[in-house]
Order: sequence, then C-alpha cells, then structure tokens
Amino acid sequence: MLASNYQNNDLVLGIDGGGSKCKTVVLNKANDILGTGISGPGNPLHGFEQATHSITQSAQLALKDAGLEHIKLSELVAGVGLAGVNIPAVFDQMIAWHHPFKAMHLATDLFIACLGAHNGSDGAVIVSGTGSCGFSCIDDTHLMVGGHGFPQGDKGSGAWFGLQAVEQVLLSLDGLAEPTLMSEVLLKNLHCNNATDLVEAVVNKKATFYGQHASVVFKAAELGDNLALAIVKEGAEYINSMARMLAAQNPPRMSMLGGLITSLKPWLASDVNDLIEEPLNPSEIGSVIFARQQEAK
Amino acid sequence: MLASNYQNNDLVLGIDGGGSKCKTVVLNKANDILGTGISGPGNPLHGFEQATHSITQSAQLALKDAGLEHIKLSELVAGVGLAGVNIPAVFDQMIAWHHPFKAMHLATDLFIACLGAHNGSDGAVIVSGTGSCGFSCIDDTHLMVGGHGFPQGDKGSGAWFGLQAVEQVLLSLDGLAEPTLMSEVLLKNLHCNNATDLVEAVVNKKATFYGQHASVVFKAAELGDNLALAIVKEGAEYINSMARMLAAQNPPRMSMLGGLITSLKPWLASDVNDLIEEPLNPSEIGSVIFARQQEAK
Repeated sequence: MLASNYQNNDLVLGIDGGGSKCKTVVLNKANDILGTGISGPGNPLHGFEQATHSITQSAQLALKDAGLEHIKLSELVAGVGLAGVNIPAVFDQMIAWHHPFKAMHLATDLFIACLGAHNGSDGAVIVSGTGSCGFSCIDDTHLMVGGHGFPQGDKGSGAWFGLQAVEQVLLSLDGLAEPTLMSEVLLKNLHCNNATDLVEAVVNKKATFYGQHASVVFKAAELGDNLALAIVKEGAEYINSMARMLAAQNPPRMSMLGGLITSLKPWLASDVNDLIEEPLNPSEIGSVIFARQQEAK
Repeated sequence: MLASNYQNNDLVLGIDGGGSKCKTVVLNKANDILGTGISGPGNPLHGFEQATHSITQSAQLALKDAGLEHIKLSELVAGVGLAGVNIPAVFDQMIAWHHPFKAMHLATDLFIACLGAHNGSDGAVIVSGTGSCGFSCIDDTHLMVGGHGFPQGDKGSGAWFGLQAVEQVLLSLDGLAEPTLMSEVLLKNLHCNNATDLVEAVVNKKATFYGQHASVVFKAAELGDNLALAIVKEGAEYINSMARMLAAQNPPRMSMLGGLITSLKPWLASDVNDLIEEPLNPSEIGSVIFARQQEAK
C-alpha cells in the first residue's frame, strides 16, 4: 500500500516538545512510522509563540517526510506531550491555543515519556536532557519529582551541568577555585580568551545553551579533574535520590531517558542502575499511545 | 547662598547605577550634597534602555530635590559609575550613548565605590548587594575579582542567596532535601501554596527579584536551620576568599559595601572582619571624585 493511499482516520500524529527541540512522528494503524519531523524548541514555558510554531512545523515536516503533504493537519488527531505544561497556567494557555489539528490531546512530556517507555503500561521514568525530572504512573496515580526548570531546579540536567561548569570555570579563572581542565575546553568552545569574554558569551543565556556545554564536565571528570568530579557526583547523587524515591512507589518498570543519560549512567549508584530497564519506545510514540487512549474513551 | 544662585561650573553630578537602583547626588564646590535622586535599575548589561532612562531620571530628580530644576543636564559634568561596564562591549555601548550631560566620565561601579570608600585614595572594596564583587586600586593598578553576573557568578550576593533559597526549598518540598524553615517563609512571601506555584512565581526572574528574597536565608540560619546555615556558610566563605585575595595586594584600606553586608558580617571569618574599615563615602560620592579627577587632567 502506498503512503498516499492511507485514510486519514488511520493516521495519528505523536508529538514530543522539549526545551531544545520538537519531534513529530506520523503512524498508521499498524504502528508503522511513516514519517518524522524535527523542529526547534517546544517548551511553551520558555515561549508560547516559539513552541506552537515548532509543534506545527514538526507536524508538517513529518507529513512531508511521509510523502503525505496532501493531508492537512486539520484532518489528523495529534497526541502532544510538552515540557512546561505541568504548570497549570501554561497547560491552560496551550489548551486555549487555536491549534491546527482535528483534535489535540495534551499531556506533560513526562507522562508521554512514561507511556512510551512502558508501552502504555504503568511504570516510572527519569528524564535528563536539557532539563531533569522524575515521574511515575501507577494505577492512574501520577507522581512527579523535580522538573522545576532552570536555573531554580532541574538538578542533574544538561542545563544544570553546563551552568555548574561555567560557575566553576569563572571561580577558577579568578583564582578562587583550583585550576580545572574545564577552563581551557569551555573557553575554546565559546571562542573566549578570558573570564570577561566568557561572561559576555553566557550572559542572559537560557537552559538550551547551557545544556549544549554539559559534556565539558563529563570529559573532564573522566580525566580525574577534581572540580568536574565534584559536579558529576552531585548531579548523579540527585538522580540517584530521584530514582530511589520513585522505586519506593513499586513501579512495574523504570527507565531513564534523555540526551544526558548515556553520560550519567556510569556515575549512578549500582542499586539505581540495577533498577533501570531500556525504554520500549521513545516519547513521541508515547504521544501516539496517549492520543489513541483518549480517542477510545 | 541660595541653591538657585549656584554657578553650573561649581556643580557636579555623581551617579551610581546598580542592578536594582540608580542614585544621583548633586554636589557644590564645597562638597555639600545639594540634592539626591533615586530611580530604577541602572545596569546596562540587563537592559541598555532601562539603564540610560534610570541615569537621566535620577539626575533630573537630584536637581529637582536641590531646587535646581532651571539647570539643564547639558550644563553639568557627570561622573557615572555603573555595574556591567566591566564588560568591554557594554562599556563601548554606554560610551556611544547620546547622553544628556555636558560631559560624562564613565567608570565601573567598583572603581567609583573604591574611590568613594577611601576618599579618592588607594584601597580595596568588596561589594555584596544584588551582585557581588571584589576590587582594588593600588598605584593605578586595578584588580577585579568575581562580579561575573547572575546566575553564572556573583556568589555570596543577594541574588545568589535568593536563588539558593528557592533551589533548596524546591528540593525540600520534593522530599529530596530535609525540611527547612525557608519553605514556609518563601511560599508565604510569594503568595504560593506549593512547589508548582513557586516555580510559576520565579520563572524567568532576574537577579533583582532573587536579591529581594536573600533575607529568608539569613533569618532561617539565625534560627539554626541546617539548609540555610549551609547556604550562609558557603556564601560567607566565598566573601572571605575574595577578601583574603584582595588583602594579599596590601591595600592601605579595605571596606565592604552593599545591601547584604550587614547580614553577612556576623558570618565572616574574624581575620576578615579585622581587615574591614567603614567606607568614608558612599559610591555616588566616588563618582563625583572620579569626575573631578578626570576634569582636572
């Protein structure tokens, strides 16, 4: 069957919008991924216009990728999981959005990550990408831990690691902390010669920017750098604490997701690593599962 | 002699612009303060339009306070000390400003604070208000320590203390840090019922906002609250380190300035408190001293 022969009712859009990007997949009834689209930041807490633009754009790109440009977004049901909508005012703002879809089923990025990771069944997830958060869904009861945003929360996230690196490098360049391997790497990555340049490069920067520099800390920690090791240990200990708190809820499964997990895993406690199973599907598939559950009600 | 009889050449404006306010004094030849004006934020790093508006407004208010409304700003020389202009691009932007004065002599807030504190002589200052920084001026050589802005620097400042309080309260409300007296006070001050409300109240907030909540930490620390004590000790230790680094330059005098110093002083090490002498003049008088030094060249 050619893609262009699909009936619109067979197709569902699954959308996952986070701090740095928004991803859409279009699936058919048989759960084949027909197309994928990726656009810019999708967290409405950091910009409603940007997020809604990213959602629409990634959905259109997914249809184009599937060779289904002739189908309009207004013909399709979308499951949409977004960072930021755990805040009631942001959720309400998104629900009030004059969205382009036939129907939009909105949930937090964590809930759809959890649905995806455990294929629609109960479980728990810890996400560490640009932000960080823990979440469990057991017997229709949701528990959320952390996830309070940058810079006031999101410990152990990419943004948190990046900001810690900048803080420690500035202290070190001032002679108020010991020398660190992170200084040379960070200055080079940001085309800076000194602390003044570095401040100019980071001033007023958002979580996404800092998240892009998290790897500086892990690379230095692997080489035994004291300041980097202290940051990594503090971040990992926070993720350990979240995992143990979620484990106390006895979820059937627990997974970790997000761009930072590969870097973090070797630093987590062994009792925590023992709890972790691979996610069965990515978050955007969780959005599809959510949309189907809601349509079936 | 009535204020209205002053010759314009006798008068000098001294302006001090920081993260939360901008203050101008108008002085006569005999160094009498004829008038004072206070306006909003004056740090051009956090907004050029706001800062230049604040500078002009506080200068006009000072003239009005002196009963000198008939004198135009374009007839007066101004010494202007500003936070943020330690960054070359910000300094250049301010120098390019089509300012309203007869002449504008621009310097960092730290240099004018130091000139004021030591009445134009060599010395060192540590400032902790909305931001924090150390500075010394000895034999025309300037040394600056810290002062890298929020949230990447400015440890031990009001903004830093406020952010630490929010971070620890969020961890505590999640059950990932022990209970703290700061939770109830901070939630009440911000009219919040829970962590979600608190995140909504602080999202995207700037240094000035956080600086307004620094006192929460000190009040809880005085009552023996563990989390608050840890924050206060870390902040005070940073200020100790800055003071010892500046002391190693052998400045003739050292002073501490800024809205947080009264709260911090009891927590500083005794060797540091022994080094500290009262500032002889406030920063805005330092701006007047600077303007006169420059005009005399």
